[in-house]
Amino acid sequence: MADEGGKTAVPLSEESLIAHYFAPLAQNFPGAYALQDDAAVLEPPAGTDLVVTTDALVSGVHFFSDDAPADIAWKALAVNVSDLVAKGATPLAYSLALALPPPPSAEFLESFVEGLAEAQAQFGIALSGGDTTAAKGGAIMISVTAFGTVPHGKTLRRGGARPGDSLYVSGTIGDAALGLKLRRGDADAAAWPIDEAARKWLIRRYLRPEPRLRLSPALLAHASAAMDISDGLAIDCRRLCKASAVGAAVGAAAVPVSLAAAVALTAEPALLAALLTGGDDYEVLFAVRAGEEAALEAAATQAGIPVTRIGKMIAGEQGLTIIDAEGTALDFGSGGFDHFQS
Amino acid sequence: MADEGGKTAVPLSEESLIAHYFAPLAQNFPGAYALQDDAAVLEPPAGTDLVVTTDALVSGVHFFSDDAPADIAWKALAVNVSDLVAKGATPLAYSLALALPPPPSAEFLESFVEGLAEAQAQFGIALSGGDTTAAKGGAIMISVTAFGTVPHGKTLRRGGARPGDSLYVSGTIGDAALGLKLRRGDADAAAWPIDEAARKWLIRRYLRPEPRLRLSPALLAHASAAMDISDGLAIDCRRLCKASAVGAAVGAAAVPVSLAAAVALTAEPALLAALLTGGDDYEVLFAVRAGEEAALEAAATQAGIPVTRIGKMIAGEQGLTIIDAEGTALDFGSGGFDHFQS
Repeated sequence: MADEGGKTAVPLSEESLIAHYFAPLAQNFPGAYALQDDAAVLEPPAGTDLVVTTDALVSGVHFFSDDAPADIAWKALAVNVSDLVAKGATPLAYSLALALPPPPSAEFLESFVEGLAEAQAQFGIALSGGDTTAAKGGAIMISVTAFGTVPHGKTLRRGGARPGDSLYVSGTIGDAALGLKLRRGDADAAAWPIDEAARKWLIRRYLRPEPRLRLSPALLAHASAAMDISDGLAIDCRRLCKASAVGAAVGAAAVPVSLAAAVALTAEPALLAALLTGGDDYEVLFAVRAGEEAALEAAATQAGIPVTRIGKMIAGEQGLTIIDAEGTALDFGSGGFDHFQS
Repeated sequence: MADEGGKTAVPLSEESLIAHYFAPLAQNFPGAYALQDDAAVLEPPAGTDLVVTTDALVSGVHFFSDDAPADIAWKALAVNVSDLVAKGATPLAYSLALALPPPPSAEFLESFVEGLAEAQAQFGIALSGGDTTAAKGGAIMISVTAFGTVPHGKTLRRGGARPGDSLYVSGTIGDAALGLKLRRGDADAAAWPIDEAARKWLIRRYLRPEPRLRLSPALLAHASAAMDISDGLAIDCRRLCKASAVGAAVGAAAVPVSLAAAVALTAEPALLAALLTGGDDYEVLFAVRAGEEAALEAAATQAGIPVTRIGKMIAGEQGLTIIDAEGTALDFGSGGFDHFQS
């Protein structure tokens, strides 16, 4: 059965669609009841709290309609697991609501499910339930609610940073912002003196964020506050400051960037703002209690996750100050990604 | 600030929108952290399991774009709480993903939040977190993931019915199917000899389903299997039979209908199929262990929830047989609502 677009339409009821495509994703989670019941049952281990996060992705807003369905699926799960990791949680399960323009094509569903399976395997998480429905208007909407466990009372919050704490990020910042410019085909991006492999790597950083799962133990041991960077380092840093009622002084030169980003930045210095305010990093921003920096860094090294001290928390509610190598404060306005204002 | 439609656009960032409209819905749930963090923390009481269900609603599929936002919000929460109740769970909290065509209007948001607040108060549930985003294509999508607690190991399943068990429903069946016909302005509905109050009541049964919260203790004590009726009595009864690997014999005359539905049915006997196969009842369908019928009925009476025995579970996997008053088997085909096939 083929529709006008040449795609193979799925001649299935909602029930068959779930049984065929989604039930295999739930097979390792007994509380999912093979997706044949109306609800799932979660049994968090004794002594743990359940951390819950919800992030929704909409085509044309969070991804391009012609992105590979496997990449869209990966990202939908990754952005939620990224929140779990930043709270110190170990991933447990997730619920998926998927609205697709009817009829769904077998090609889309197969690729989408493949992306979910890859992400599940990497993140150690299983599908526990969800809902599939037709969507009117042509847009695809994916909402994931992810569950993780944290030792009772230990969930990391945005609001725990204190003056004197050091401010860290994991990985490198701004790759996804450059990847998005490449994915969109922005004119300036074509001129960056980087090779094809670097371009692909930056685009992949945008399409396939990798939550820093192995960093959780180090965060639980030494972080006073943490969040993932989804809307840009600058705006998310301001959020952490506001929740903690402290300020932060960040040195732009200390912010870790990839070699690919550094080369692009050398050719186009104005990219600095894009790196520091662009969204989709999905790295962890966290404050470390004063005096515990060496222990944190040792634990991160042990876990194989690069972390970099980018500044420190300061008294007062002045928010974020980013200074350049000459000590001049940089102003990016209220830079960052806002779904309703961008 | 007004857009072309005369609606008041909300000149707010996503953060302000959450703080202004949604944070009040979370104020009674400490683990929501006033919606100012990236995740919520659930602490199910010791000795309980967490029951999780996800249902998504899309405009043009599950509701009309010009339904009152308060009604849309009520229904989004009610259909999820209905699943919790049918599993024997006590509502705890819910996560909300909301995708709206930008910019969201203040009128929409105020009415939507009012509907959620009304539903929360009636269902004893609080907002724990979620996500708001712009939607492209004009459609509204609402995905709710609801959490409830059940004594450890006691979650009611679809699959526990045994031959000899009695089959029951709560409330009356088919009101929402008639309410939908009235809401759509179907030609036949105009001819039903019912007054304006009855029409409004039927439409309200469609727009504002009321989960049978107080029935949970009776279900936990006496039911062998349970599910809510969302896609029509006939198809959902078949699902319960299939999951339990038993059949069911139902007497059409025993199915409880409201006075309004009975009058419409008298004028238009063909409505019987709509009553038995129409969706959106959100009543509970459940099997009661043989010999426990009187105790179940006493407990339901005590709780103030009407329940009616409509048939019994029988051996074999013949599925569902509905017989009329003369003992003739009725055939509705595979009647029921399917989101991709309807």
